[in-house]
Amino acid sequence: MSAPIITLTTDFGTRSPFVAAVKGVILGVNPDARLVDLSHDIPPFDLRHAAFFLADAVPYFPPETLHVVVVDPGVGGGREILHVARAGQQLLAPDNGCWTLSADSPACVRRVREPRFWRPTVSRTFHGRDIFAPVAGHLSLGVDPAELGPVTTRWCRLPLPTPRRDPDGLLRGEVIFVDHFGNLITNVALTRPPARVVAGDTDVSRIVHTYSDAAPGDLVALTSSNGLLEIAEVQGNASRRLAAGVGTPVLIRWNQ
Amino acid sequence: MSAPIITLTTDFGTRSPFVAAVKGVILGVNPDARLVDLSHDIPPFDLRHAAFFLADAVPYFPPETLHVVVVDPGVGGGREILHVARAGQQLLAPDNGCWTLSADSPACVRRVREPRFWRPTVSRTFHGRDIFAPVAGHLSLGVDPAELGPVTTRWCRLPLPTPRRDPDGLLRGEVIFVDHFGNLITNVALTRPPARVVAGDTDVSRIVHTYSDAAPGDLVALTSSNGLLEIAEVQGNASRRLAAGVGTPVLIRWNQ
Amino acid sequence: MSAPIITLTTDFGTRSPFVAAVKGVILGVNPDARLVDLSHDIPPFDLRHAAFFLADAVPYFPPETLHVVVVDPGVGGGREILHVARAGQQLLAPDNGCWTLSADSPACVRRVREPRFWRPTVSRTFHGRDIFAPVAGHLSLGVDPAELGPVTTRWCRLPLPTPRRDPDGLLRGEVIFVDHFGNLITNVALTRPPARVVAGDTDVSRIVHTYSDAAPGDLVALTSSNGLLEIAEVQGNASRRLAAGVGTPVLIRWNQ
Repeated sequence: MSAPIITLTTDFGTRSPFVAAVKGVILGVNPDARLVDLSHDIPPFDLRHAAFFLADAVPYFPPETLHVVVVDPGVGGGREILHVARAGQQLLAPDNGCWTLSADSPACVRRVREPRFWRPTVSRTFHGRDIFAPVAGHLSLGVDPAELGPVTTRWCRLPLPTPRRDPDGLLRGEVIFVDHFGNLITNVALTRPPARVVAGDTDVSRIVHTYSDAAPGDLVALTSSNGLLEIAEVQGNASRRLAAGVGTPVLIRWNQ
Repeated sequence: MSAPIITLTTDFGTRSPFVAAVKGVILGVNPDARLVDLSHDIPPFDLRHAAFFLADAVPYFPPETLHVVVVDPGVGGGREILHVARAGQQLLAPDNGCWTLSADSPACVRRVREPRFWRPTVSRTFHGRDIFAPVAGHLSLGVDPAELGPVTTRWCRLPLPTPRRDPDGLLRGEVIFVDHFGNLITNVALTRPPARVVAGDTDVSRIVHTYSDAAPGDLVALTSSNGLLEIAEVQGNASRRLAAGVGTPVLIRWNQ
Repeated sequence: MSAPIITLTTDFGTRSPFVAAVKGVILGVNPDARLVDLSHDIPPFDLRHAAFFLADAVPYFPPETLHVVVVDPGVGGGREILHVARAGQQLLAPDNGCWTLSADSPACVRRVREPRFWRPTVSRTFHGRDIFAPVAGHLSLGVDPAELGPVTTRWCRLPLPTPRRDPDGLLRGEVIFVDHFGNLITNVALTRPPARVVAGDTDVSRIVHTYSDAAPGDLVALTSSNGLLEIAEVQGNASRRLAAGVGTPVLIRWNQ
């Protein structure tokens, strides 16, 4: 039997010792756990970034994977920690909506309240180390999630902007994610290629299937790898070129 | 039996091939070793940062863990490499003080001098690859540390600033670490909440228990997750706001 | 038997969900695979950086290692994906030359064309997730590379600048890599120490064996850990100090 996989997604960065402490505590509880870093570069406190990130990554993992998500601006206050069972996977995350974007419905959500699985002393500022990590370690040892706390049917959801359709058929969306290459991902799901795309003030003249359909430096619109309208500069950085980011309005028109 | 855990802490960054070469050499010696990245973003040559990082991370790991630390401005010169046995864990580090902050006393420190466990050719500039990595691989295979070299009772210690107490009871400390969120960690261990904190020229008006006790944007003082006085901007960046960093003076007064 | 080692080298960064999705797909195919991050910080689209990186890292890994390299500006266009067997290791990389710098000759190169091992739906922009990852997973399960596609003897090679020798014996090289410390690595292999080195307009006065042969702040020339002429500022950053980078000319003279 494989050792259990525990993935880590945080806004901790790696200059600080936070990620290392989390790993130490997990391995202290279960030295056989297999740790897989997803990201420690979620922008600090950015729940929407985390939500988009997880929706695009979590579904690819095999059943039994346990995802530990610590993007947690409300640490130490009233927010609770949730255990989510979904599509055969498990997830530990603060109840702040950072995990709710994915399309799959959760099978079962619990409030993590049983201190038996926590570190004996819990700080007010670092639940990643003191609660998430030891709970993850115990789950990977086979602890039944039912022991963590009561089932709940209420949790925070992250409000996401939805595109609006004008009476004349024009769709008004916006940029919801800027990737590492400066590509602008919008909230517009594409089922057929648009005829015209305007990002901010800029007409994106070329509608293509992939980056290499155009020349380096060309500004293009295409379908992203997750099915959304994407605006890119070929082998360049569209975000920098257009001074565009999350929230930049994008207009889309289709041919009749 | 679990495969042995080898953690890596360096100032190598990950754009350069140094970390990858170290991993390759370790796995070349012991393909079963389990590598765990702690950080490759220690600021270049910053021994004090490394020391603070390790003191906050190493104690959480289980016995048998082997920590490889390569923050090594003196590579190729006269500095030696140490093997440290402490609290059931092992550590390989340059003899430059970067590992000495932790409170636990080492059980046994050795000078790594036996070239039998090194790469056949040792460069003058990359002992991480040529000495640390193969020695770590061999240790993870069960080599007795006694074979690495002689025991020593002398090693470099890192001078750390200690807070000074004025005759009137005012404590003068300083910032010793800035974390990923821009929180300022000081050298003042807190046993009870202070009445007044001044960081640089700025009065930190609010003393709280955790970030979410105040509103986003508030400047607060609290006890950090490792028990030290910390100054933070809630969901912001105190280092940027106060233009403060390592060495910034901090004054603390308690009520009688 | 050890679980198979799969290394990952990309220009994806870790703020975006790309690396996480690749890991998820690999583990979805083979939950026992052991993932080892080499780098996700290859500068975007920088084939030469990737080539230099791989040449300096891959040879240290043990036989059986599978290296997945996704630095892929031509994704979705006409470029093919290659499977390379070399020195007992395997490598998956786009056919863009990013893997060709290493001195070892490949034993066998194949075009990856058999969609049976791909994700059922292949996007036009993210072959890392849709082709590289599942193929790597299947290879790690023991799939015979011969099933991936036909052998080829033609592939892209990366043009690398070679130093030129003047009639008077002066060698004209250039910087080909800047490491994390700002050290300038040139395309000049050193077999004996030079007498004089000029980088850009700056005479590098000191020729040393290792950094600590000179004082912090000194500008020095030495042999890098991979045998090339390197220019460094001791405990500083030569790239910043000299405003030098990839392509900066370097002149070298030896004593007769």
